[in-house]
Amino acid sequence: MSFETSVGTADADSITVMGRDLANELMGRVSLTELAFLVVQRRMPSAEETRLLDAVLVSLADHGLTPTVLTARLTYTGAPESLQGAVAAGLLGAGSVFLGVVEDTVRFLDAAGDDVEAAVAGELEAGRRIPGLGHPVHRVEDPRTARIYAIAAETGVAGTYLARLRAVSEAHTNQTGRRLPVNGAGVAGAALADLGFPPALLRGFALLARTAGLLGHLAEEMQSPIGMRLYREVDERAKYAPPARE
Amino acid sequence: MSFETSVGTADADSITVMGRDLANELMGRVSLTELAFLVVQRRMPSAEETRLLDAVLVSLADHGLTPTVLTARLTYTGAPESLQGAVAAGLLGAGSVFLGVVEDTVRFLDAAGDDVEAAVAGELEAGRRIPGLGHPVHRVEDPRTARIYAIAAETGVAGTYLARLRAVSEAHTNQTGRRLPVNGAGVAGAALADLGFPPALLRGFALLARTAGLLGHLAEEMQSPIGMRLYREVDERAKYAPPARE
Amino acid sequence: MSFETSVGTADADSITVMGRDLANELMGRVSLTELAFLVVQRRMPSAEETRLLDAVLVSLADHGLTPTVLTARLTYTGAPESLQGAVAAGLLGAGSVFLGVVEDTVRFLDAAGDDVEAAVAGELEAGRRIPGLGHPVHRVEDPRTARIYAIAAETGVAGTYLARLRAVSEAHTNQTGRRLPVNGAGVAGAALADLGFPPALLRGFALLARTAGLLGHLAEEMQSPIGMRLYREVDERAKYAPPARE
Amino acid sequence: MSFETSVGTADADSITVMGRDLANELMGRVSLTELAFLVVQRRMPSAEETRLLDAVLVSLADHGLTPTVLTARLTYTGAPESLQGAVAAGLLGAGSVFLGVVEDTVRFLDAAGDDVEAAVAGELEAGRRIPGLGHPVHRVEDPRTARIYAIAAETGVAGTYLARLRAVSEAHTNQTGRRLPVNGAGVAGAALADLGFPPALLRGFALLARTAGLLGHLAEEMQSPIGMRLYREVDERAKYAPPARE
Repeated sequence: MSFETSVGTADADSITVMGRDLANELMGRVSLTELAFLVVQRRMPSAEETRLLDAVLVSLADHGLTPTVLTARLTYTGAPESLQGAVAAGLLGAGSVFLGVVEDTVRFLDAAGDDVEAAVAGELEAGRRIPGLGHPVHRVEDPRTARIYAIAAETGVAGTYLARLRAVSEAHTNQTGRRLPVNGAGVAGAALADLGFPPALLRGFALLARTAGLLGHLAEEMQSPIGMRLYREVDERAKYAPPARE
Repeated sequence: MSFETSVGTADADSITVMGRDLANELMGRVSLTELAFLVVQRRMPSAEETRLLDAVLVSLADHGLTPTVLTARLTYTGAPESLQGAVAAGLLGAGSVFLGVVEDTVRFLDAAGDDVEAAVAGELEAGRRIPGLGHPVHRVEDPRTARIYAIAAETGVAGTYLARLRAVSEAHTNQTGRRLPVNGAGVAGAALADLGFPPALLRGFALLARTAGLLGHLAEEMQSPIGMRLYREVDERAKYAPPARE
Repeated sequence: MSFETSVGTADADSITVMGRDLANELMGRVSLTELAFLVVQRRMPSAEETRLLDAVLVSLADHGLTPTVLTARLTYTGAPESLQGAVAAGLLGAGSVFLGVVEDTVRFLDAAGDDVEAAVAGELEAGRRIPGLGHPVHRVEDPRTARIYAIAAETGVAGTYLARLRAVSEAHTNQTGRRLPVNGAGVAGAALADLGFPPALLRGFALLARTAGLLGHLAEEMQSPIGMRLYREVDERAKYAPPARE
Repeated sequence: MSFETSVGTADADSITVMGRDLANELMGRVSLTELAFLVVQRRMPSAEETRLLDAVLVSLADHGLTPTVLTARLTYTGAPESLQGAVAAGLLGAGSVFLGVVEDTVRFLDAAGDDVEAAVAGELEAGRRIPGLGHPVHRVEDPRTARIYAIAAETGVAGTYLARLRAVSEAHTNQTGRRLPVNGAGVAGAALADLGFPPALLRGFALLARTAGLLGHLAEEMQSPIGMRLYREVDERAKYAPPARE
């Protein structure tokens, strides 16, 4: 009984990834971004698809001292011998609350189908937030959004999801009289979906992008550490509240 | 008291990464690979540097059903709700035995300095393996090695580390009468060092590359799962050996 | 502004956990199990509660070469310098498919309320499996189940959840004419709920128990490794299926 | 070809752990602490050994809002759907800087052998800190230390390692004229070594203990969250220092 895979294999003389000879067809010819597209979609992206995918990845790589960054830097403080542990710990916080929006937005757009007005009305009635709309920092416009729409238009990749997300935003404004910006995670999700990636994998591209960002923060932590100082300060400001004793 | 960082920041209207406006200077203009270079080295790479860095990342992205891949796929089997957990678990196995060679090779080359013959002789006397030489699958030539050397030469980035690694290989052949190939992890480390990355960060680029590879395996696991079957087979073939009872 | 916590604090002379002096009131007086109860429930358990909690934890600690164990042992193979990475990777697979049943069972029992017959009928009509019933290995009886019920009865801790889980099993047999065993994860969840733990924390006790089990497997991996052999065998039996080239 | 293990196995009717029937010989009869001892040492501990092991585990379970706790709570903030991710992220920071002392102390005592004076002198000359001595908070006495020594004496388990650690402390005072307290991690390591655990596994018991402590913090985070507030405050106080542009 065998374990079948299409991703990669190696023998004495060669390494193969998705049917391509790694050394001769991929190394020096494709970027990491193109390789990531290839291993998930099993075909090479066009130059236009690559440009949009890179824009999305770059848009998701960093947003300052976020919880994933603090987690990675605190972990490095305690376990500098294991860079993989610091990166892994950082990625573990990229869950439903932060980067999950990338996926949630696309699942909402899938469920909405063409009747966006009804889908938005349903969420509003249920008192739920609409995935992809609103951002605690970028309250008027998320600077990533217009840029992704522009690149998607330039490259001709813009499709159903990006169009539907815009319709969601307009429906929300119409129905509430209040305009919320389409946020960067939502537009990233819609663009990735228009690039052909399945919903269950979308969060994975946020993880890939964040790994690049984390390397920058870990390089900085090695030179100008903040992890230990953050801990010491929290420790000093900790207020102990003993539970009632029965 | 503030927490200073150069990596990134955001305000209501803009996001900044390493002093560049994310939307206008980076998205649509740089690749994820260029961004990863930028956040670690704090400057943009040249086109030649980017080409070599992409070649290194592509070379490290996949090598078939390795332990890190099996770990990620088994983790997904048990926790499909958490793609970040599967990626993180996969990366945690990228430690000293497998991807550590990327870093170990550079540390050895640093310690060797110009007297490569003496450094090799010292390791041989001590009965230690020389980092960067030999591979259990690629016994004669690692197909990645000549390709990295060629791209490094073409791009003009080849420097001290790649030269010294070649000298290590030659010294080893001279002293032992037996030729071991320079392996892909070793040449990747030397190329990253010639690109200017510090030793402590090198493993991080292997993690970035492997994250891309893991996305391919997790996409495949969603379609053609092997995790559960691997577990069931091990379970069936497990042989229980009770310890002696006192 | 302060960060308030009731769990623990330390000053020059003492360490406090949940309002108790660690050295004088806890060390030498309470077990790790009692401490785990204390930090979550903010009160000391009775001897009876401790006995049941220990029985639940012991019941969840190991089940042979499961995916979490294989993951931990493969991770150790690649990164022996980081025992914390091997344990963490193992725990990451303890998600919805395996140990999630502990929590899912209790959430189902909560939703069912007193009308267990209707809740079971609803799941059967929807074609869903009922959490806590059935096991791929223990097809007739899960040996842990009767034992937990017996200890819960002996200690007088058995309450609503354990009773309701039994009623679920009986309703399922009545409605289908087919008897499925109550499984060990389900009964563990019901017992933990009767001990007063909230649903969102239940999986945490499975993680605590598995950590103990993983230490045994990692000790064994150091002496009698199987990780590398497992990888090599999968690698030999890997069958490469290149994707169609467009 | 089979995969041999002594830890555990299961068949239709029974589960076995270290040669014991799980349901009948272990559940209801042994504590989680006894089980952890059993799976690593392959024999049941005596009541005295269990008492000391519990005291060590309890001593290591919590020390307030440490980096591992902050990491777990920040991870939960971003990924509340994955309790295993929060626990795993917390454990990943339990590396060489914090809990590594447990292991480092024993390795130092092993290397020192009977000539403790010479070993201490060697470290002092090399300008290295002696593992197990000194604590940033407990500057005069670590409250855990005397308690572990007392319980080890009461239980008759105190052996070579605890004696040698005391000798190290005395040698250090004699040679420097300055007394540093034996710290809680160091004495825990020595006690675990006297209990018969191998150095490479010692960190694992710190991980087990910390898992219990993390459950308390995660329960608290669910009720009285601090993760999001910690992030927002760091974000507000972040000072952006753009790198020089070439």
